[in-house]
Amino acid sequence: MKRVAEYIHGYTYGSPDVAKSQVSQRELEDLKVSVGFTDEDQRYLLLAGEVLADQTRRIVEHWRSGIIAGIPNLARHSRSPEGDALPDYLAKSNLRFEQWILDTCLRPYDQEWLNYQQEIALRHTSQKKNKVDGVQSTPFVPLRDIIAFVAVINETIRPYLSAKGHSAEDVDKMHRAWCKSLQLQLALWARPYATSGQTPNEW
Amino acid sequence: MKRVAEYIHGYTYGSPDVAKSQVSQRELEDLKVSVGFTDEDQRYLLLAGEVLADQTRRIVEHWRSGIIAGIPNLARHSRSPEGDALPDYLAKSNLRFEQWILDTCLRPYDQEWLNYQQEIALRHTSQKKNKVDGVQSTPFVPLRDIIAFVAVINETIRPYLSAKGHSAEDVDKMHRAWCKSLQLQLALWARPYATSGQTPNEW
Repeated sequence: MKRVAEYIHGYTYGSPDVAKSQVSQRELEDLKVSVGFTDEDQRYLLLAGEVLADQTRRIVEHWRSGIIAGIPNLARHSRSPEGDALPDYLAKSNLRFEQWILDTCLRPYDQEWLNYQQEIALRHTSQKKNKVDGVQSTPFVPLRDIIAFVAVINETIRPYLSAKGHSAEDVDKMHRAWCKSLQLQLALWARPYATSGQTPNEW
Repeated sequence: MKRVAEYIHGYTYGSPDVAKSQVSQRELEDLKVSVGFTDEDQRYLLLAGEVLADQTRRIVEHWRSGIIAGIPNLARHSRSPEGDALPDYLAKSNLRFEQWILDTCLRPYDQEWLNYQQEIALRHTSQKKNKVDGVQSTPFVPLRDIIAFVAVINETIRPYLSAKGHSAEDVDKMHRAWCKSLQLQLALWARPYATSGQTPNEW
């Protein structure tokens, strides 16, 4: 599997430390159908993965420095409770963010992927945020901010998908597949927020 | 305000029956920023409203008969617990679905809009589903299905946006504005699902 760096702190994809997802394979299959995710989408995600592979650093820089840093409400989640920068935390989570782009495009959406989706979800909630990096920051990222930022990710990924000279039609198809995958992942990430007793009131 | 029909059963937008949203104006403004919603988006939504106004019936037909009806997991939410069709329920909710397209494009996103977003959200949860139509159907629509279907709505709206001969650039801008609005609304609709004690375990 393609990686953005040899060592990625806190990146535990496929490791036995990652708990089994509480989402069943059946629920995942149903979600794929609801989102309209097809074999063609899967193929175009693989193409997107090739296209994006050497751009992940620039993309995450764009999201972090170009967008999130300018929105105090979002930027605080990578800062100390006093609002100070945490460069080490940012660098580590940026690397995982880069790898997530590749995983979105190149990984099979199987049990391991499902398990890691749950891990990603929990790392945004009070159950696991800050823990893997041992930092003090906001206790959780509100679900609404995650939902909202997916719109930004979807809009801004497009020029990177067209940066390698593919036809408008192919770029469209890559983009559509990307957006479906993101919405599928968003549905999975919402689970702990909507499950009684897991993360109360982190909307 | 443009309406898809003179009488729309259960459409209570702006009426005193609609409770005040638990989301503050400040939270709404923050969400708009997070989603990247600009004045330009607002203008392009108005244009989208003009473009879509005489197509709402066809669009909702497409979503309901062309897509949802073929996905048992989604279709059941408009059917009886035994799986029988409820044509009156479907007709009524389809009309509201049509009007929602116009409201998305043409309404100002003010306090009344915010209140009605909460009403829409609750009507998908066990708190209010089926009530306004006095029917027996599934007790709620799981949050994950709503998140997933937004991807379908976003993908399938595009040809309708380009049906009136606007330039590719204008269609792109209308579509981008539409997708941001949908994600903003999705964030608002997620609130009751993620709020303790309101709708436990309706993920």
